[in-house]
Amino acid sequence: MERRIVGVLGGMGPLATVDFMRKVIAVTPAERDQDHVPLVVYSVPQVPDRTTAIATGSDDPFPALLAGLRALEQAGAELIVMPCNTAHAWFDRLAASTDLTLMHIAEAVRTSLDRQPDGDRRIALMATAGTVRTGIYQRALASRTRTVVTPPPTVQDAIGGAIAAVKAGDIDRAHKLAESAAEVLCHEGAETLLLACTELPIALAGTRFEAMACDATHCLAEACVAFSCGWDARDREAA
Amino acid sequence: MERRIVGVLGGMGPLATVDFMRKVIAVTPAERDQDHVPLVVYSVPQVPDRTTAIATGSDDPFPALLAGLRALEQAGAELIVMPCNTAHAWFDRLAASTDLTLMHIAEAVRTSLDRQPDGDRRIALMATAGTVRTGIYQRALASRTRTVVTPPPTVQDAIGGAIAAVKAGDIDRAHKLAESAAEVLCHEGAETLLLACTELPIALAGTRFEAMACDATHCLAEACVAFSCGWDARDREAA
Repeated sequence: MERRIVGVLGGMGPLATVDFMRKVIAVTPAERDQDHVPLVVYSVPQVPDRTTAIATGSDDPFPALLAGLRALEQAGAELIVMPCNTAHAWFDRLAASTDLTLMHIAEAVRTSLDRQPDGDRRIALMATAGTVRTGIYQRALASRTRTVVTPPPTVQDAIGGAIAAVKAGDIDRAHKLAESAAEVLCHEGAETLLLACTELPIALAGTRFEAMACDATHCLAEACVAFSCGWDARDREAA
Repeated sequence: MERRIVGVLGGMGPLATVDFMRKVIAVTPAERDQDHVPLVVYSVPQVPDRTTAIATGSDDPFPALLAGLRALEQAGAELIVMPCNTAHAWFDRLAASTDLTLMHIAEAVRTSLDRQPDGDRRIALMATAGTVRTGIYQRALASRTRTVVTPPPTVQDAIGGAIAAVKAGDIDRAHKLAESAAEVLCHEGAETLLLACTELPIALAGTRFEAMACDATHCLAEACVAFSCGWDARDREAA
């Protein structure tokens, strides 16, 4: 069974990378080790903070991201993905720096929503302030029949707090903040909560909002498995 | 803060690699992403089955392991570890094939036991038949004051069954088989259960045997963090 190698530019944060790998394994049809998707993972968390860089207009993260990309090329990766939404601010420049294909996380989400019968809805974007500011999801997802709503400032603060709490290992606090944010977004008409930060699925796990969430990491994992196994859209529907 | 890059030759199986990475993160003193240990991970599960190869005297896994080692060298790794006990049958040849240091999982366990006040005890080895047969733990751990006991055949069969059940995702069955094996080993005088297969901590999680277990993956994770942070034994005690 042929499997193409997926290169993971990760470590932002390290737990999010582990969570992404776990999801790749979970969505792979496999009966033994050898059926699983081969991954080469560069999980080097010494990349300067992405949200800070976006807020200050700094380019600090780029050289570290490029070094990771080069390491993955050397290690035999055939596709590059980044399980960090905020790092996608540097996606275009990274894509222009390599002959390999980079798969954009927002495109993976769009592919996933397009396959769902109720994927055309009012979608609330839950992400870091940096990701919201880059506009990657607003551009990739908005259509004639689909609306992408960004949170008001106080809700954005709660989302940022929930993300920081997960990074600090304070899951109770993360639950409370993420739930309060989700509450307001639903009250304002959101039908789908797009969890576009790798820490947010952890913050909302086990809450009543889980059922209406779309996990961007999960969408990226599905897209990687499809690439690695050489599935086109039709194969995927049959699988 | 300086952090050296740890190269992980993984994918055997893929969940065990993820479990190892999670343990590295858990044992790292960190307040933000950048404090964490940088990892380059080659998780390519297409390595031929190790236990089968050992049983039949085949060398099939070696070329795949060597390819992974080369990829990790290229990607900048400064130390190589394998979160797969059975693959250590090829440790010496891999170590002879590179200028990088390979850290042996049984040495990491010995270091950990040597630091514990009650580390000199009667230790039962719970592992694949392949790992038991290689003798890596018997050689690394046995001393004047420490005994390593290998399981009788029926108990070894139960351990093998528990490992297979975890790989197949049947955790209930894994619990039952691992508990029945642990029961016999304790009855025969074991004071510590050495879980020397990456699936076994999952099989014994939440059971009454957890408290007397020594998890080889956890020991390897601790040793990697110490290497990456440049700690010597004294720093570690102070940390």
